[in-house]
Formats: sequence, C-alpha cells, structure tokens
Amino acid sequence: MFDLVAFDADDTLWHNERLYQTARVRFNDLLEPYGLDDRIGQRVHEIEMGNLPHFGYGVMSFVLSLIEASIDLTSGRIRSEDIGKLLDLAREMLAAEVELLDGVPETLQSIASGRSLVLITKGDLLHQQKKIDRSGLRDYFKQIEVVSDKTPAVYAELLKKLEIDPSRFLMIGNSMRSDILPVLKIGGCAIHVPAKTTWQHEQASLPNEFGSRCLEAASFRDLPELIEKLERDRA
Amino acid sequence: MFDLVAFDADDTLWHNERLYQTARVRFNDLLEPYGLDDRIGQRVHEIEMGNLPHFGYGVMSFVLSLIEASIDLTSGRIRSEDIGKLLDLAREMLAAEVELLDGVPETLQSIASGRSLVLITKGDLLHQQKKIDRSGLRDYFKQIEVVSDKTPAVYAELLKKLEIDPSRFLMIGNSMRSDILPVLKIGGCAIHVPAKTTWQHEQASLPNEFGSRCLEAASFRDLPELIEKLERDRA
Repeated sequence: MFDLVAFDADDTLWHNERLYQTARVRFNDLLEPYGLDDRIGQRVHEIEMGNLPHFGYGVMSFVLSLIEASIDLTSGRIRSEDIGKLLDLAREMLAAEVELLDGVPETLQSIASGRSLVLITKGDLLHQQKKIDRSGLRDYFKQIEVVSDKTPAVYAELLKKLEIDPSRFLMIGNSMRSDILPVLKIGGCAIHVPAKTTWQHEQASLPNEFGSRCLEAASFRDLPELIEKLERDRA
Repeated sequence: MFDLVAFDADDTLWHNERLYQTARVRFNDLLEPYGLDDRIGQRVHEIEMGNLPHFGYGVMSFVLSLIEASIDLTSGRIRSEDIGKLLDLAREMLAAEVELLDGVPETLQSIASGRSLVLITKGDLLHQQKKIDRSGLRDYFKQIEVVSDKTPAVYAELLKKLEIDPSRFLMIGNSMRSDILPVLKIGGCAIHVPAKTTWQHEQASLPNEFGSRCLEAASFRDLPELIEKLERDRA
C-alpha cells in the first residue's frame, strides 16, 4: 500500500471550473453594450497569465484580471458601475456553495480504509479553507495543505516535511499540469481523473516515459480499483 | 526554556504598515480631483472591514476595497483609468522590497541559539512566501506557517499539530489583537513589540488577568533579555 494518498480539491472533489465559466459568460454579457469584437476571451487569458506571478491563483486574482481586462478592452470606456458589478461577482464566487462531484464521499470512505489521505490544493488560503469546511469532507483527511503553486519542488518539500518517500506517494487529481506531471517528475505515482471542463492553463499532455506510474480514471468511482492495481503492480 | 518560540512577520520582522499608509496617501491623491470631503479614510475602513470576511487579509483584498471605495466615494464618477492605477498599486505593493526592522537578523541569531523558532504570519499565501524569501530570514525558522487569521482556535490547532503544550509556547509580535491576546487566551506566553505604526484593526488593549505571561519590549533588540526573564520566572 502507498504510505500516503493525496487528492487535489477543485474539480477533483467538487465543481470549480464551471463557476469560472459562468463568470466569464457574465463578464462577456457585461461588456456586450460596449460593442466589442471576439477577442475578449483571448485578451482575458493574456491578462490572467500576466498577473499570475503577481496575484497567484484564486478568485481575487481572477477578478482583478477581469477588472483590468474590462478597462483594456473598452479602451477605458467601461463605467465604474460595471466595475462595481465585478466586485459583486468576486463576493458571489467566494460565497458559492460547494457541490461535490458524483460519488465522492462514498469513494473516499472506501479509499480511506487502511490508508492515510491528505488534501493538497493550490490557491487562495482563506477561500480554499472555506470550501473544505463547506464540503463536509475534512474528516477524511489527516492533513490539509494549501500551497501557492504545485511544482515538483513544492511536492518534494511537502513530502520531505511529511517524511514520505516519493515512491510511496500517490497523487490523484484532474489537472495534468498541477497534479500529475510534477508528482511523476519527483518519482511518485499519479491517477488522472479528467474533469468535464478544465481551465486551459491546467492542460498538458503526458510524456510516455511515465506510463507505468500513471493511470487514468474514467470516473471518481473507479479510483479504489485503480489504486489497488497500482499497489499490486508496484508490490 | 520554551519548547517553541514563534514570531509574527509583518511589522515584527520587517516594515509593512508604512507600505499601506503610503498606498492610502496615493489613494487620497488619486481621488483629490473629484473634490471629496474628509470622510475618505473612514469610508475606506468601513469597506475594508465589510470585505474582510470575504477577501481576508492582504494586498489584493486591500486593493479590491480601494476600488470599491473609489466608486462609492465618487458616486460612480471615478474614471476607469484611475481604477487602472489601483491595479498598478497592487502590483507595486506585491513587488516591494522587504526592509527588515532594526537589529532583526542578529537578534534572531541570538534567540535561535538552543531554541526552536517558527514564523506564524497571516494573509495572502503567495505574497507572504515571497516576502519570507526576500527577507533572507528563512533559515532561522524550522517551520513557516501562513494562516488566514490568528484566532485562539487557529493557534490551538497549530500547537496541537506541532505537539507543543501551550504553556511551553512563546509568541512574539506587534499586534495585540493577532499575536498577543489569542496566545494568552490559550495559556501561552507572549512578548509585545509595538511597531511605530499599527493598523487600527490590529489595536487592542491587554486585560490585567494576563499580566504575568506577557511582557512588552521597547525594541526588537531587547528580546533575548525578556525571553530569558520569562523563562526564569516560569522555571
């Protein structure tokens, strides 16, 4: 058995990206009266990427980028009243209910039997903590780690702190970029559970070299079987 | 000796509040052409307090509140170009150099001799981590804890995780509200090192009941002597 099984949170345990997609639609609707062309999505993405090193991940970072994009795309014609609506959007996103993905509590329960589970999530500390509280899933995890980014170095440091050998570590998540590749790079195992929709920033392809340490799950409910398969193969 | 000596970071190890004060002056200057009355500071404070439960502590939260206040105080007359300047302000604050307070590295060096030090700071995870990196002080601390708020419950949970008895724990910081009172409430000791300027939200007075477990330091350089005094008194 693995010494530690870690889960991503957003779009692995509960819906998240669709909240952002709804927000992007509302942003487009807000800018509609200003008669813009079709480059809104592309420009928002560029501004988000430019702000990532400054603001990091999360709702506040996203909404600050939307405010910047609204000024940029309208060449300053955006009315401050409409910018105020983006502040309301931020508060609404932060207050949104947490909706679990299908089968999550019962599958976690099954995986937790005899195994140590931790949650590793990136983004805004306060908001991630609130979502964990709202999810009702806290008690499945012996530890919750909120990190500012998910790089190989961040995983390596975390495993060192927890005194876990990377070869005895399994990470489960929907983001190839943040949950799968960095863990494989430091010698761990991973199971990719693709989400219905994934933010373009989190998409990546899997190099062949990691094949035997990585599996893909069609659904969260398939995880117990796949974890056992990885455990048998590596025994 | 204490089993663990913890330090706050902002305005305990390095300057922070004056960055916010400068930002508040720039905000007032920005609004000056709109011909406002003298209630700017009060209104900004109200909006900050209203947003705290949603946005938490840190620069992004502060600047989102300034954007909201700029719309509110000008009754929507604020130009989007001026709102754009607040986004620049956010990036500048996040990129600002970390300036250590007087005597910090050598005093930490002296306190660290034979003692375990940790850093406990609240606010935005990414920004706090960057400031710790920029400070050059990381190696004095066996652990860095960024928390979303500093309540008695947060300190109690942290000490439980670190397996430290509160009576063997000393916290050092500039904020009576966040560093001193919650630690005294759970049975720990504290040394208050007042900063030259303290955000009004962080100000509080010390109830008499905690007298013997709390000392006040005139300067950071006085800490080794005061820690030894607390250790002697409690031996």
